[in-house]
Amino acid sequence: MSAPVCPVPATARDRIELAHGGGGRLTRRLIEDLFRPAFGAAPDELVHDGAVFDVGAARLAFSTDTYVVRPLFFPGGDIGRLAVNGTVNDLAMCGAEPLYLSVGLVLEEGFAIAELARIIASMQDAASVAGVRLVTGDTKVVERGRGDGVYVNTSGVGRVIAPVPIAPRQVRPGDVVLLSGDIGRHGIAIMAAREGLGFEPPLASDTAPLAAAVRALIKARLELHCLRDLTRGGLATALIEIAETAGVAIRLDGDAIAVSDPVRGACELLGLDPLYVANEGRFAALVPEASASSALAVLRRFDTTAAVIGRVEAGTGTVALGTLGGLRALDLLSGEQLPRIC
Amino acid sequence: MSAPVCPVPATARDRIELAHGGGGRLTRRLIEDLFRPAFGAAPDELVHDGAVFDVGAARLAFSTDTYVVRPLFFPGGDIGRLAVNGTVNDLAMCGAEPLYLSVGLVLEEGFAIAELARIIASMQDAASVAGVRLVTGDTKVVERGRGDGVYVNTSGVGRVIAPVPIAPRQVRPGDVVLLSGDIGRHGIAIMAAREGLGFEPPLASDTAPLAAAVRALIKARLELHCLRDLTRGGLATALIEIAETAGVAIRLDGDAIAVSDPVRGACELLGLDPLYVANEGRFAALVPEASASSALAVLRRFDTTAAVIGRVEAGTGTVALGTLGGLRALDLLSGEQLPRIC
Repeated sequence: MSAPVCPVPATARDRIELAHGGGGRLTRRLIEDLFRPAFGAAPDELVHDGAVFDVGAARLAFSTDTYVVRPLFFPGGDIGRLAVNGTVNDLAMCGAEPLYLSVGLVLEEGFAIAELARIIASMQDAASVAGVRLVTGDTKVVERGRGDGVYVNTSGVGRVIAPVPIAPRQVRPGDVVLLSGDIGRHGIAIMAAREGLGFEPPLASDTAPLAAAVRALIKARLELHCLRDLTRGGLATALIEIAETAGVAIRLDGDAIAVSDPVRGACELLGLDPLYVANEGRFAALVPEASASSALAVLRRFDTTAAVIGRVEAGTGTVALGTLGGLRALDLLSGEQLPRIC
Repeated sequence: MSAPVCPVPATARDRIELAHGGGGRLTRRLIEDLFRPAFGAAPDELVHDGAVFDVGAARLAFSTDTYVVRPLFFPGGDIGRLAVNGTVNDLAMCGAEPLYLSVGLVLEEGFAIAELARIIASMQDAASVAGVRLVTGDTKVVERGRGDGVYVNTSGVGRVIAPVPIAPRQVRPGDVVLLSGDIGRHGIAIMAAREGLGFEPPLASDTAPLAAAVRALIKARLELHCLRDLTRGGLATALIEIAETAGVAIRLDGDAIAVSDPVRGACELLGLDPLYVANEGRFAALVPEASASSALAVLRRFDTTAAVIGRVEAGTGTVALGTLGGLRALDLLSGEQLPRIC
């Protein structure tokens, strides 16, 4: 007689959850368990914003991002502008001059063509502002209820202009952490649009191309170890990833991190920590001490709230935030804070 | 007294239909009316399989495609293999050696991670077969009912190895049309899987990388005017686009176009024309008369059913099919033949 068969129920962890897309712990697990082994990637390749490689005599950066933000239109931008700026920024974070973008659309049956036209016009405007060209594209249509209006993929190619590699593994003790502006505007603008929170004046997303600021840092011949835009998961997640990849400790000065009053107020109302809220036009630069004051001067030409916010110390992949209240360790989020923020 | 307000109802044409993704007339209208003006593209840029540009001393090809095929797994492949081969093929059609691919995933909440793992493994295998590397990626998650398991975008970068431009506008009267193998296998394999049609043995998709065949044509120093893989819309749509872009007439010999018995039978059963059915491992090559017999010999090393199927004549953008029954003009499809075929 054979033993009774008792099928093991699939646990929630066997299925994709919203948090797998949140940039936190579950996203990391997908990358570590599934993507890295399959892709045969080097240790820090998949946590960087893009890939860097040589084709002939040209050193190129290549990056991809899909945008599923909801709502499609929000104060300060829309999914099209976000998609162009996002890939422009990923290329810039590789120390590259962004050049060419592709556009891949997944349209839902029934989506208004007038809205699509607005999004396309916005993409073209953003491309023009950032100095890139949209050169190739693809459109797919799915049935009603299999999409959400439109999802936009942009991929991009740029020419690396930084003379030395810019990557998380270049970060070392003694480096200074610079922040290019105040944080949390994109995430809070999206949440406000979704939840009907009124701000007067309306709080706008910070979506913007960062390539000009990066170009200025490189043209100033400053040594740059790592650049990272602060999207899903915000400043905290970005720095934790860098600290873990580089095997260092990062200590932040909480009082130096600029958060505008409306963002701070909304975060308190919604129970969010601005350190984890998404930005779409802010980045951190980790540079050697000798370059820090010049780099700060460059960043302040683009945003007067740019600041030195911390330092890198010897360690094993940790980030700590110092405030008047003491020192607390920052950790990757386990759940999903703001689904479909980008 | 003001006149009564009578809102104009939005017509169906104001909204996205499945046919906008079918590769036929409505897809063309989106490109012509919306994308080309916004992107400022040259006349044939957006109907080619990818963009070609120089970065420094390197001549590059760049392409993107999103895959929404249903079902995700089908005889001969799955969405992952399709996504890798599809972008490899788009690069090959530009006369390029495919090198690096990006992967952008839109996952639906609740999707089984085991299925995702199978798809990722399949992508890695396909990349290995095609000799390309998956170097960068992005994952987004949408709520249940806002996706369909997984959508996959692949974008790719390749190095152009063809000594002269390969593009629709290079086609001229006197050119010969070669077809690399029999047609219709991918579309019919998908339809059979969806409709539960049984084939014995099962009919498999033709999904395959075409880069080796293109490389062989280029290494043989043959003059190549245009290469085009025969995906959405099939052979007919591809040749109509080429004829229109080049401003020529193409005359096809219907008896020379190989269609396997199971594909022919299924097409009769389903009321489909194999000329419009999608392929994922077949391409047309338009070459000058002087190169035709050598090119055919190269193609037959890869597939013994490769054949000369037609000729290019002076004209104004038409394709005609000659059979025993006479000559008929081929036109872009107005509706959607096979939604979500790729």
